[in-house]
Parts: sequence; C-alpha cells; structure tokens
Amino acid sequence: MKLTLGEVAKHVDGEVVGESDTTISGVSEIQNASPGTITFLGNPLYSKYLKDTKADAVFVDEASILNGKSGIIVSNPQLAMAKTLTLFSNKKLKDPYIDSKAVLAKNVRIGKAVTIEAGAVIKDGVIIGDKCKIGANTVIGENTTLGKSCLLSPNISIHDNCTIGNNVIVHSNTSIGCDGFGYVTENDFHEKIPQEGIVIIEDNVEIGSNCAIDRATIGSTVIGEMTKIDNLVHIAHNVKIGKGCLLTAGFAIAGSSEIGNYCTFAGQVGVAPHLKVGDRSIVASKSGITKSLKGGKVYAGFPAREIKDHNKRQALINQIGRLRKKLDMLIKDQTKH
Amino acid sequence: MKLTLGEVAKHVDGEVVGESDTTISGVSEIQNASPGTITFLGNPLYSKYLKDTKADAVFVDEASILNGKSGIIVSNPQLAMAKTLTLFSNKKLKDPYIDSKAVLAKNVRIGKAVTIEAGAVIKDGVIIGDKCKIGANTVIGENTTLGKSCLLSPNISIHDNCTIGNNVIVHSNTSIGCDGFGYVTENDFHEKIPQEGIVIIEDNVEIGSNCAIDRATIGSTVIGEMTKIDNLVHIAHNVKIGKGCLLTAGFAIAGSSEIGNYCTFAGQVGVAPHLKVGDRSIVASKSGITKSLKGGKVYAGFPAREIKDHNKRQALINQIGRLRKKLDMLIKDQTKH
Amino acid sequence: MKLTLGEVAKHVDGEVVGESDTTISGVSEIQNASPGTITFLGNPLYSKYLKDTKADAVFVDEASILNGKSGIIVSNPQLAMAKTLTLFSNKKLKDPYIDSKAVLAKNVRIGKAVTIEAGAVIKDGVIIGDKCKIGANTVIGENTTLGKSCLLSPNISIHDNCTIGNNVIVHSNTSIGCDGFGYVTENDFHEKIPQEGIVIIEDNVEIGSNCAIDRATIGSTVIGEMTKIDNLVHIAHNVKIGKGCLLTAGFAIAGSSEIGNYCTFAGQVGVAPHLKVGDRSIVASKSGITKSLKGGKVYAGFPAREIKDHNKRQALINQIGRLRKKLDMLIKDQTKH
Repeated sequence: MKLTLGEVAKHVDGEVVGESDTTISGVSEIQNASPGTITFLGNPLYSKYLKDTKADAVFVDEASILNGKSGIIVSNPQLAMAKTLTLFSNKKLKDPYIDSKAVLAKNVRIGKAVTIEAGAVIKDGVIIGDKCKIGANTVIGENTTLGKSCLLSPNISIHDNCTIGNNVIVHSNTSIGCDGFGYVTENDFHEKIPQEGIVIIEDNVEIGSNCAIDRATIGSTVIGEMTKIDNLVHIAHNVKIGKGCLLTAGFAIAGSSEIGNYCTFAGQVGVAPHLKVGDRSIVASKSGITKSLKGGKVYAGFPAREIKDHNKRQALINQIGRLRKKLDMLIKDQTKH
Repeated sequence: MKLTLGEVAKHVDGEVVGESDTTISGVSEIQNASPGTITFLGNPLYSKYLKDTKADAVFVDEASILNGKSGIIVSNPQLAMAKTLTLFSNKKLKDPYIDSKAVLAKNVRIGKAVTIEAGAVIKDGVIIGDKCKIGANTVIGENTTLGKSCLLSPNISIHDNCTIGNNVIVHSNTSIGCDGFGYVTENDFHEKIPQEGIVIIEDNVEIGSNCAIDRATIGSTVIGEMTKIDNLVHIAHNVKIGKGCLLTAGFAIAGSSEIGNYCTFAGQVGVAPHLKVGDRSIVASKSGITKSLKGGKVYAGFPAREIKDHNKRQALINQIGRLRKKLDMLIKDQTKH
Repeated sequence: MKLTLGEVAKHVDGEVVGESDTTISGVSEIQNASPGTITFLGNPLYSKYLKDTKADAVFVDEASILNGKSGIIVSNPQLAMAKTLTLFSNKKLKDPYIDSKAVLAKNVRIGKAVTIEAGAVIKDGVIIGDKCKIGANTVIGENTTLGKSCLLSPNISIHDNCTIGNNVIVHSNTSIGCDGFGYVTENDFHEKIPQEGIVIIEDNVEIGSNCAIDRATIGSTVIGEMTKIDNLVHIAHNVKIGKGCLLTAGFAIAGSSEIGNYCTFAGQVGVAPHLKVGDRSIVASKSGITKSLKGGKVYAGFPAREIKDHNKRQALINQIGRLRKKLDMLIKDQTKH
C-alpha cells in the first residue's frame, strides 16, 4: 500500500511541509528508517537522528524542527505515528472461524463472527460475545462471560465465573481468576481460605503477557475501564483498580488494596495490602507503597512519599560528607584555641 | 443453601449473639455485604464498616465489638469466615472424568477418581495418584509422579522426573522443573551446565500462577511440606525451601540458597545465591538478602538486616537536616567570637 | 554407564590424583554425594564439605586442596563438572516424531528430524529448521521462522512474524512477540499504538520460563547471540540486547533501551526506557538504571551508579550517628565556655 503525504496528513489532521504528492509505504524508526517511509520525532532524545534519517518525511510538532526536511506538522507526533501505523497495518483480518481442534463444551453461547483457534478449551456455560478472537490453547473456565470484540492471545487461563467486558485484550500466558493467596495460620498450620469471589475486567482493558490476576476471596477483584496492564503484573485478591490506569511491568499489588482512576505506576512498584491510592497518582519505578496515598501527586521511594520529599531525603545523604568535613575543621579549630 | 446462625456457630465452635435461628445464605465482605449473609471483622482497619454493614451477622472475637448487632463470637474471626466459606462453597464437585481430548502416553498409571481435562498432555511413565485433577492444556513430563488429591490448573508445565506429593495445588501457567540458569563462562563463551536434577514438591504445598521453579543441576530443588507460594515467584536450581513457609508474590531466590521452616517473605523480596535463612525468619517486602540470616527475627532492607537496625538507619537519614542546621549555627557562633 | 577416573580426566583435560581405574557412575553435589560418583569444588563456600564428602573423587583446581582424597586437577572445576554431567546425561534422545495430536497449518515448512509434541499449534507460513523440538501445547504464530536445533518447551507462545535463530532454547510458558505496552494519551484516553514490529532472537540464545519479550512497535526487538535469560524476565518493545549477556531472574527493561555486549545483570534489576548500557557492564541485584551507563564497570543501587560510589554513599549513612555525637559534644563544650 502506498499513500501520499497529503493523504496521510489528512488522516492525522496535520499540515504537509514539502511535496504533498510524495508517496510513502510505511512508518519507520527515525534511527533505522528506510527510504519511502515516514518517521516521527516524539521524544527530544531522538532529535539527533533527524538530520541523517533516511525516511522521506517526519511527523513533528513544529515546522522549524524540520530544518529543510519534508514532514507533517501535527499537535502530537506520536499519536500521528500511531494512526498512520494503523493505516498501514500488516495484520490482515482473516474471516472468523472456529477450529475443529478447539474444544467447546455443549452449553456455550458463541456470538457472531467469533474466531476460536485450535486447542482452545471453552468450558460449560461460557458466553463469548460477537467478534471475539480466542487464541490457540487458551482455556476459559465455566460460566465466564466475554463481551464483544475481545482479543485473547494463546495459552491464557481464565478461570470460572469471571466477567470480561467489551474490547478487552489479553496477551499470552496470562492467568485471570486464579485463587488468591489467603490462609489463616494457627499453630503453624496454614488453613486455606476458599477463594469464592470472581474477577471483573471492564471494557477496553488491555492486559500484558504472563500476568496473574487473582479472583476475590468474597466479592470481586476489579480492573476498571480502559486500564492498561503491562507484562508480569500481579494483582492480588479483592484489589480494585480504577479507570484509565497504567500499570507497568513488574507491578505487584497485595490483597484488598484500591487504586483510584488515572493512576500511573512505573516498573517494579509494589503496593502493600489494604491501602488506598488516590486518583491521578503517579508513582516512580521500584517504589514501595506502604501507606495510603491521597493522589494527584508524584510519589517515589520505599516507603513511597511525595517525590519532592523523596528527592530532598536523597540529597541529604549527599551532604553527609561535607557535614563531616565542616565538623572536623571546627573541632580542629577548637583544639587550637 | 441456607443455615441458621446456630448451625454456623456450631460449625466454627462459636457463640451466637442475637437470634440463633436467623438464616443466612453466604459470606460477604463487610463493606459490600448483602442482607442474608454473615461477614467478619478480622482486621481493625475495617471496623469502621461494622456500623453500616448490611450483613445480618458478623464474626467477631469479642462480644462488645458488636454493639447491638447480631454475630458469632469466635477466637479467630478470619478462620471462622474461611470455614463458613467452605460450607457454602459454590464449587460443586463434578464426577471425575478423563476427557477424550486429553493426550495420554501408553504407559501412564492413573489412580482412582482422577479428572484429566481436554488438551492435557501426560507423557510416558507418569504416575497420577487418586483423586487428582489435571487442568486443560497442562503438560506433565516423563516419569513425573503426583501423589493423591493434587489439583493442577490449566496451562501448567511440569517437566520430566519430578516428584509432587499429596494434596498439592498448582495454579495456572506455572512452570515446574525447567532448567536452572547455569553456565560456565570462559573467554566470553557461556557453556550451558546440564540441569540433570529434579524438583520435589512435598505434601500440602500450594503454588500460585505464573511461577517458575527450576530443576536442580544435580540433586533436587525442594519445596517443603505445607509451604505456600504466591504468584510470579522464582525458585532457582538447587534451592531448598523448608516447611510451612509463605512466599509472597514477586519473591525470587537464587541458586542453592536454603530457607528454613516457617519463614515468611513479603512481596518482591530477593535472596542471593548460596545463603541460608534460618527458621521463622520474617522478611519485609522488597528486602534483598545478601548474607545468611540466623532466623527467628524480623528483617528488612537491602542489604537485609534486623528490622530494628534497618529502622534506626532510616531514622538517621531524617536527622541529617537537623545536624546541618545545628552545625551551621555553631559555625556562625564561632565566627562571631 | 560407568567411566574410570582416567577416562573422565581425558574428557575434561585434567590430571588424576589417586587411582586412574576407579570407576564412577555420575556427578553429585559435594554435601549430598553418594559413593561411586565424582563431585566438584567450584566455590570456596563449599570447601568445608570436602573432608566428609562420600564422593569417590573431586574436581579441584589445585592438588593441595585434595588433602589425601582422590580427584582430578583441572583449570575450571565447574566446567569439568558440566562436561562430565553431559557425559552421564540421562536425557536420552528419542527418535524425532510429529505427534498426530499436533496441529499444523497447511503451508508450514518443517525440516529434517523435527519433533513436534501433542497439542502444539503451528500456524500458516511457519518455517521450522532441522532437528528442532517443539514442546506440547506450544503455539507458533504465522510466518515465524526457527533455525536449526531449537528446543522449545511446552506451553510457549511465539507470536507472528518473529525470527528465531539456531540452537535457541526457550523454556515453558514464555511469551515472545506479544504486543508492547504502548499508548498515546490525550484527554484521559489511552490510544493503543499498533505494535507492528517483530522480535529477533539470535543464535545460541537461551530464554527461561515465564518470560515476556515484546515485539517492536516498528522495527525489531533483538536478543543478541549467546545471550542467556533467566525466568520471569521482561523485555519491552524495541529493546536491543547485545551478545553474550546474562539477564538474571526478575530483570525488567523498558522500551527502546539498549544493552551492549557481555553485560551481566543480577536479579530484579530494572532499566528505564530509552537508555544505553555499555558493553561489559555488571549490575548488582535490585539496581534501578535511570541514566545511560558507559559500561566496563560494576554498578549498583537505585539510581544505579558505580559500585564504589554506591558503597561510599551507603557508608556515609553509617557515619551519621557518630557525627551527631561529635557535634553534641562540641556544643556541650561550647556551652561550658
């Protein structure tokens, strides 16, 4: 497929700098671009590559950056790149099919235009909405329901009685609805607490690969609408994650904690049990949240505190050497007297 | 199913406060309870919900807490909740079956009342004890043996020659018996060390989802009796975990380290290789254990030390600002003289 | 199988101390050795076990260590152990076979002597080189190519269009080529960035269990030749890992970061996005890399710095108490005057 810069600009609501009828056939990385493609400058770290990029055009947010190059001016170059990638996407939609090697229990309800790949196991009472795609060897437990247009990768395990909304994407080897880690210990004996609740995944959620989302002990573990979860994330039983959150790889949250809306967690953050993290919290990587946070701020460290306090504390450590020198001089002075 | 408070009290060895013949039909969370259920107060954090809970009765450990509500007095409200949940459990036991879509090698030995779901692959020489349940698409490698009443979720990979005890629960997408991470490096070449040992999982162990437990290089990696492992836990080759330990999500232990009995590790803890952690160690979240620990204490930090020393060290950092001020005043005073 | 010490010594290029015709039948751990085996002393931590080991012989790097025991002197006892383990390996090679319960799309190209176990799903356009082994229930996406002699464990998910080199080992429940975690956020809406790139795994790479390696947004995520990856490792989109690196369990690297050649990362390290880590960096466990590192050094801490600076900083904290005492004495002195 080829498109002119003019056609692309129209698609992303941008303005061409250079020849509108230059044709491009795809999107490329600025440092590894091939001729005949468009690239983008979304992060100033990469501006050093602009001069020598082999791409024919660049998405930028200011004409002056182009410095003689052709390009398309847009308010958000990364968004324009994303939209253009979609235009050129090489993921052809196949006609939906249910593979003869998929294993469907008798009483399942499957919507229209559903694809179920080989080896998938769909158990009793499952309901699958229209246009869903279930990957090879994925297992869906009894009475679990999927909304419309869900995309499940291979080798996923979704356990019984869970509720998955519309347009939910789950990547490979992820577990949803497994038992939470709950025991009552008496006299060195760990009595297992039955995990009788469910998991609710709301609309437009995306969940990465090799994640584990536990079912609730009682009630439900909830992943709110449009929350996006990276790989290798752990969500314990009875956790509630709000809407529009971003949980980066290695995030782990302990039982019954609640995250508000539009929170962002960088990688390898941990959250202790029974806490509340308020709306629009932004949490730096590797932080450990040990107390509830009000939200609306940037937090860092372990224990996590507002990042300005965290940074001050870190800076204090840098002063110890100087303090010691000052003090030693003072003592020396003293001794002279 | 409905039970009277009296019947429930008898089951959990408790004492009813209120009407013994009130009927309940399940257990609920205190903050989201529905009428006709019993809830519990196990954590003082949740006592604020007691007044307005819609549950008909509450498990508490002291009558005075009830403050006019109905309830059942027990020594451990969480344990009473667990036992009552089991009473009401909605997990109906199905008749055992071996699905025609399971793949069994010729020479496997399967006990009585075993369930093997569709897509499970059971290789040569496997022995499966009575009443085991093997989840869909789970793979069990050659000559591995399972004791009685093991419960394996879907998409688990257990490799060759491993030994799984009785009443072992393994959750979905977990790997047991994969090769350890072992190389000998000479002149920038990483020679793979064959991983010829096995994994032994003792009785009553529970292992979460998406864990990886490596086989030993030589000998065995051992998970001791009644140890409980959360999700996304890494156990390297030749590790020995004692009895009754609790390993919370994100725990990772390097090769040949040994953990004693009844140790508890909070989330995201790491243990370096070739160490010993003594019995009844309790280790705070995100700690990094870099030296052997005697045990019987609470440890925290990285490098992990006794928590009182860790806390002192953290408090010292708080004093730096004050020290600086004091010192500056002193210098100012000096200069005046 | 039995071999004489003389035969083993010849195989590992070593020199026998004791009777050359003593026969051994395997390799054992020094602390748990059985008679009739050879063990090794590769780590001084274990020298205390030498005296009482039941092994008939010990690989050591200096004759004096043996102290009367039989043994084989080699330059690298661990390497000798690895080579001897391979000699005695109990992993019999079976004749290659394609199980009738494997699911192969019509247009796949399968080399000679390939094994494909039951339940594996091989999609359209896949090319599998000679002598590969594909584990049970592993799924290989469209148009992905595998070189020769690759060894894939069960329940792996490799997505479309990826390129796997020769002699690549992948362990169970690992995901390769899943979508990266990429969104453009405008007005609280997270627009998914299509992930149109691929993953390239070069020759002689080994990847542990339950890892997640994301495909690139554009271009490729690359794991360089002979790099070895432990369990539960996260590699984000567009990351480039050089040759011969060792990435220990729990390692997580964010999008577009680049690691040079022969780098070693201990457990639970994190790397922020868009960074470069230079050749031959060694990074201590739990470090967090937040700025590019030149390489050729040992780094530690969060933020990661050269380990000598990290250690100095840690030592400074130890001085605070003493500083306070000194200062308080000085103030007391002052007041006296």
